[in-house]
Amino acid sequence: MLRRFAFVLLAASLAAAAPLPFPFESDKPIYPEELKRDLRSLQQAALQDDYALDQVGFLANQIGPRLSGSAQASAAVEYVAAELAALGLEVKKEPVTVPHWVRGREAAELTAWPGQPRGTTMPLVLSTLGGSVATPEEGLTAEVVVVDSFDQLKSLGDKVRGKIVVFNVVFDKNLAAMGHSGPAYGQHVRYRAAGPSAAARQGAVACLVRSWGSAHYRLAHTGNTRYEADVPKIPAASLPVEDALQLAYLTRKGPVRLHLTLTPQTLPDAPSHNVVADLKGSERPEEIVIVSGHLDSWDVGTGALDDGAGVAMAMQTAHLLKQLGLKPRRTVRVVAWMNEENGLAGGRTYDREHANDRHVAAIESDLGAGHPGGVEICGDPRLYGLLAPMAEILRASGAGALDFSRGSGADISPLAARGVPCFEPLQDSRTYFDYHHTQADTFDKIDPAALRENCAVIAVLAHTLASLP
Amino acid sequence: MLRRFAFVLLAASLAAAAPLPFPFESDKPIYPEELKRDLRSLQQAALQDDYALDQVGFLANQIGPRLSGSAQASAAVEYVAAELAALGLEVKKEPVTVPHWVRGREAAELTAWPGQPRGTTMPLVLSTLGGSVATPEEGLTAEVVVVDSFDQLKSLGDKVRGKIVVFNVVFDKNLAAMGHSGPAYGQHVRYRAAGPSAAARQGAVACLVRSWGSAHYRLAHTGNTRYEADVPKIPAASLPVEDALQLAYLTRKGPVRLHLTLTPQTLPDAPSHNVVADLKGSERPEEIVIVSGHLDSWDVGTGALDDGAGVAMAMQTAHLLKQLGLKPRRTVRVVAWMNEENGLAGGRTYDREHANDRHVAAIESDLGAGHPGGVEICGDPRLYGLLAPMAEILRASGAGALDFSRGSGADISPLAARGVPCFEPLQDSRTYFDYHHTQADTFDKIDPAALRENCAVIAVLAHTLASLP
Repeated sequence: MLRRFAFVLLAASLAAAAPLPFPFESDKPIYPEELKRDLRSLQQAALQDDYALDQVGFLANQIGPRLSGSAQASAAVEYVAAELAALGLEVKKEPVTVPHWVRGREAAELTAWPGQPRGTTMPLVLSTLGGSVATPEEGLTAEVVVVDSFDQLKSLGDKVRGKIVVFNVVFDKNLAAMGHSGPAYGQHVRYRAAGPSAAARQGAVACLVRSWGSAHYRLAHTGNTRYEADVPKIPAASLPVEDALQLAYLTRKGPVRLHLTLTPQTLPDAPSHNVVADLKGSERPEEIVIVSGHLDSWDVGTGALDDGAGVAMAMQTAHLLKQLGLKPRRTVRVVAWMNEENGLAGGRTYDREHANDRHVAAIESDLGAGHPGGVEICGDPRLYGLLAPMAEILRASGAGALDFSRGSGADISPLAARGVPCFEPLQDSRTYFDYHHTQADTFDKIDPAALRENCAVIAVLAHTLASLP
Repeated sequence: MLRRFAFVLLAASLAAAAPLPFPFESDKPIYPEELKRDLRSLQQAALQDDYALDQVGFLANQIGPRLSGSAQASAAVEYVAAELAALGLEVKKEPVTVPHWVRGREAAELTAWPGQPRGTTMPLVLSTLGGSVATPEEGLTAEVVVVDSFDQLKSLGDKVRGKIVVFNVVFDKNLAAMGHSGPAYGQHVRYRAAGPSAAARQGAVACLVRSWGSAHYRLAHTGNTRYEADVPKIPAASLPVEDALQLAYLTRKGPVRLHLTLTPQTLPDAPSHNVVADLKGSERPEEIVIVSGHLDSWDVGTGALDDGAGVAMAMQTAHLLKQLGLKPRRTVRVVAWMNEENGLAGGRTYDREHANDRHVAAIESDLGAGHPGGVEICGDPRLYGLLAPMAEILRASGAGALDFSRGSGADISPLAARGVPCFEPLQDSRTYFDYHHTQADTFDKIDPAALRENCAVIAVLAHTLASLP
């Protein structure tokens, strides 16, 4: 997951855009008995089937990390395209040009600090931020300045010149534990994105940001950073919470010097693909319901939660519709997006290339695979009424809630900005940020039962949207 | 903490040894009113004082990892000796010869597996086990065989020849969560200790053991291994739970090959020290009550829980006795042990050199710094009665339980084997094995309030044992 919260910005522009017509013939919830029966069958089948689990297993354990531009990302495209073709869908690999950033070596150690035993250094753990420039090959050494906010950085003015700025900003664990991990993440991610350039603007030579995870196991949470055009690009990495706290502790006692070596490379943009696979509608094939997740992942874990799970849920929708022989009136389009993590090239390219397609709805799951309590809706309030009978059916697996969302999955946010109704499962994400963008995002973090529940929600939701009059 | 469970073996020999006389004049709990008042003062002072927290902070954050033989371990000896001298204790640095093992590089990656994308490898996380021999400098490559027990290994006979054996043994999280983390650890640690030689006996070329942690954040838990004399020594490391599960998953699908590079070195034994600091008894200085923790740590974290906390609690006992001007009848001897983690040289050397000292009791805290619910007693059942009034005082901070323990801290286990009554705080250790022997054993894991509660328990216990008639 990159930042569904970016969509808060898009939502503003949405208000200004001409509203699209409500995409359904009526906002009266008209569910033929046959449809209800089919939805229940779909739900029951999803709750008993491990096709999606097997798909996440393959993506995470057998293909592995899938950063844009990597051989693994290409392999994932081929694999998912072949699997969807095997289900009988019309599959296209649609070209997307993606950034190709590679991590290289990364190391940090303190070379001087108060109390330092003679002849020792103190190793730190860290993770280079996506898009970061490199230090010199042999590294750089500078004094550390720890700040807890942009305001504190500003107040230091010229005093950070030539130094390494560490943003020791606290992730709001309580907000996250209450289920509001999204806003907690959103509050925090701006330091990752904008911190390095803010530090560079005041003359810093490198920037480290404290991880935004909700569990503290010496894990650095990686993620993309963004440089502003008018200041020098400085090397940037994230620190585990522990290392940020240690630096804060030590700098309170006296001067601390850090040797930092990061050797990432930004290679020329690479060719890649979105996988776009249609299960053609039986009556209105030109009307499209997207069901999707993103295929790329960060390079540090194996991308099981983020977002192998989302891709697998989308694949499972097609698998179940085929297995049960259901024929939605509209086209169900399974999309496995490329480059959500560091560029959103897949979502943007699709939006551009498919500007004339008639999208009735778009679903993306990109917040892991925790128990779903229902569906989040981003769009016309009449959708609530329309989906109420479906929610009643979903209640059987504890997923009966319909909730308003200000944002959508990042890949479908361009569609949301055009007024396409967007959806995602309303997931228990309380532990999602424990693992997110870390080495620990691995297949064992997928709870098979909760994954099946998510599949039930997405399959039922997709079939409803594709079959309502 | 190494393995207090080793003491189960010692306990057997204890039963055979001639029992020592009960070390107190009476088993009747005779607490003069003045003693009770002093104990309450000590308790209250401990619950409000952060001397111990500052000491753990210095040991962990400023000295850092303190593996035996390292410059940091030497610095810790000097630091603690100076701090105890500053309190006015009679301090000796008593020579101990310790193993000197250094980690070197460690890396593992899969080079072949079912589904492998062309041109890729799959990186694993791991931690070389203490005492392990090295692979060739360029590493070794072999097929992986995953087993779940010694029995399964045995059943494979010759089939593991030339291969890398992975012990994928499950840590009993439920037992640990119930507060029985010790037995869960004990069940598990034998694979770390004896696994490599068992695999070598059947011709394996390397051995990996699944980590025994109770939280899964891609952390490898290090620790010492022990080679048997009659089989070749093979390189050995621990894997995070995630990596062991991934190997189990992949080997079920087909052959998996792993490239393993470990470059540890066993250097010549190094000179080091126990720090032994006496606060002389006012009436019976020849009778000694030991209060202790161990100064060395593993090299991967900063040894805050294991066992900076234990050393700091012992130092705090001396600090508070001095601060309050209390004069125990017997000598309170603060000991900071060296080499608990990979050899127990400190505990053994002390036992040999001090065979003629009259030890009345020995306390060691080496299970972190979780809330103490009371005191664990390893010794004569009459001690329960003797300590009941003290327990009543400790109840004020929720530490009123007295419990039987089959073992003692590892460093004092030679004393326990001689019949010296041994004690430790009865700690909430439910999260201890989340961090134990990992990179995440860092200062932030110390809960200041719980550390103060532990200090209260140890100071009150030590003063009681040193002051009872």
